[in-house]
Amino acid sequence: MGIHDTNATPVGVVGLGLMGSSIVVALLASGHPVVALAPIAGEKEKAAGHIAALLRHADSARRLPWGIERCIASLKLVEKYDALAECKVVLECVVEDKAIKKVVYEHIAEAVSTEAIIASNTSAIPISELQALVPHPERFLGIHWAEPAYMTRFLEVTCGRETDLNLAEYVVSLGTSWGKEPTLLKKDIRGFITNRLMYAVYRETLSLVEAGCISISDADKALRYDAGAWMTMMGILEYMKFTGLADHLEVCKRLFSQLSNREDVPPLMQRQVEARARGVHNQSGLYPYSEAGAKAWEGAFSHFNKEIFDLATRYRKEQVHDVNEENVF
Amino acid sequence: MGIHDTNATPVGVVGLGLMGSSIVVALLASGHPVVALAPIAGEKEKAAGHIAALLRHADSARRLPWGIERCIASLKLVEKYDALAECKVVLECVVEDKAIKKVVYEHIAEAVSTEAIIASNTSAIPISELQALVPHPERFLGIHWAEPAYMTRFLEVTCGRETDLNLAEYVVSLGTSWGKEPTLLKKDIRGFITNRLMYAVYRETLSLVEAGCISISDADKALRYDAGAWMTMMGILEYMKFTGLADHLEVCKRLFSQLSNREDVPPLMQRQVEARARGVHNQSGLYPYSEAGAKAWEGAFSHFNKEIFDLATRYRKEQVHDVNEENVF
Repeated sequence: MGIHDTNATPVGVVGLGLMGSSIVVALLASGHPVVALAPIAGEKEKAAGHIAALLRHADSARRLPWGIERCIASLKLVEKYDALAECKVVLECVVEDKAIKKVVYEHIAEAVSTEAIIASNTSAIPISELQALVPHPERFLGIHWAEPAYMTRFLEVTCGRETDLNLAEYVVSLGTSWGKEPTLLKKDIRGFITNRLMYAVYRETLSLVEAGCISISDADKALRYDAGAWMTMMGILEYMKFTGLADHLEVCKRLFSQLSNREDVPPLMQRQVEARARGVHNQSGLYPYSEAGAKAWEGAFSHFNKEIFDLATRYRKEQVHDVNEENVF
Repeated sequence: MGIHDTNATPVGVVGLGLMGSSIVVALLASGHPVVALAPIAGEKEKAAGHIAALLRHADSARRLPWGIERCIASLKLVEKYDALAECKVVLECVVEDKAIKKVVYEHIAEAVSTEAIIASNTSAIPISELQALVPHPERFLGIHWAEPAYMTRFLEVTCGRETDLNLAEYVVSLGTSWGKEPTLLKKDIRGFITNRLMYAVYRETLSLVEAGCISISDADKALRYDAGAWMTMMGILEYMKFTGLADHLEVCKRLFSQLSNREDVPPLMQRQVEARARGVHNQSGLYPYSEAGAKAWEGAFSHFNKEIFDLATRYRKEQVHDVNEENVF
């Protein structure tokens, strides 16, 4: 019997911004009692309304097997750390500032038992660095969610140098019980998995746009209508297998030496970000969206999320075939 | 009045393997009369059955507005090049062998008018090299399709050094009339757009797997459930805008220097391909799929194709907002 063997275990979430609130809803949807801690003055009231809105969205997307009422009954919204005492897992979702996280970890560690797992949702600070800030570093790891946490299957579990691998594997199984498809990153590399893969694409894309080879919209079109037509079903290595390995070897040989290896940020990107930072609002269209445009995209993406979630569910790997994929690449 | 102003213009397709047959069906679905030329002995009979099967699949996916019968009536399946005489556009889809393509272009050029566009579906040989093999290089370009051509919106138009850009833009508009979302590559770079972007991901993924950071299946999971949850709707630069530019600048700065710049093929991949080449069939699971597994995946992907096509249609960019995206990145 482990200490975490049912979803009846209360889970703590510290930091109730956008991501923290979304994670609270994901945990409630999985049947956990949740202690949601707002460490900043005034955050509690704001979070209450936000979590309620997210619960309604999750419910409309059929992500709440037990309905909104039971979820609200399972939620303790608090401002004091001692409310975390019974939590066996505490997820930290505060700002990406190491000094602030340090203070938060001290408060958490004081409140919970020595057996508790403390995890960070960071996507910016290495887990090994954060791990040095807790009394039991072997029980500290990264649990990285994607937005909206109750609508996505993504969950990235990252070990720091001192993390107990067994514990990480336990968290993977816990994540599976939350309806996620967790990935395990055994070494604490910068950017974790998904960011590295995506920034490899950014690097090449921005370089091609800058070189005048393609337009921004064409780069997106290529991804939407090529990768976008199989990514959700296969990922990229499965797709490589599906289309045949031999050709890829030739293309790897030919292309790797052609790809961008740049380490600097493309001026194209630098310029846009700086222009925004200078506050040039509606001139030259430097803001990404008009207010109405942003609203339309947010609404559309929220609907899209539901649809792609359902689509991905119908094409889960195990429903297609049961070959042991580790052996067949 | 251009010479290509309606889809009543016959289009030629030379080479009726998997891709060529699929392109024939895409053109028939767009209302074109098609002259489909099988340059290899015995290919014609095989192609007839294959095209019929693809037409049934396309029809079941509601991709044939005029039904199967009219499509078959619009198709001339031939073995002699003189049947191409009336074609204003001829698409070459033969094997990736420059010497063979040279002979094919000579036959095509003899048969068609000097105004005809000749295009290659190559994804391996630079357009500028192939262009040197035709009498009117300015009227030669790359038109690269994705499988299955009648079910995907992807179409990559690539200029060689001598291609008339106006002509390439005309082909983009022609592709739009085929229901595609064409992308225009103005410079003839190795790998074109989509391959370069994907091989940037392969390079990073294979390096991370090899370094023991992640498993193959976890790399795929990360892509399926993170990128796969928005790629179809946004591509990658739109997603960057959607999630906010400023953070990305920081991550670019931090990550670009960490990404793999390798030019060699990862031994992991080399080993697998070599093992297959040596004919090690069912030992160690080195073949990607069992026969039943392959069938299951092909069937599932064919269904998935229909669903993702419909989903992408519902979230076309212009339906979400009409901001001029070239200005807003």
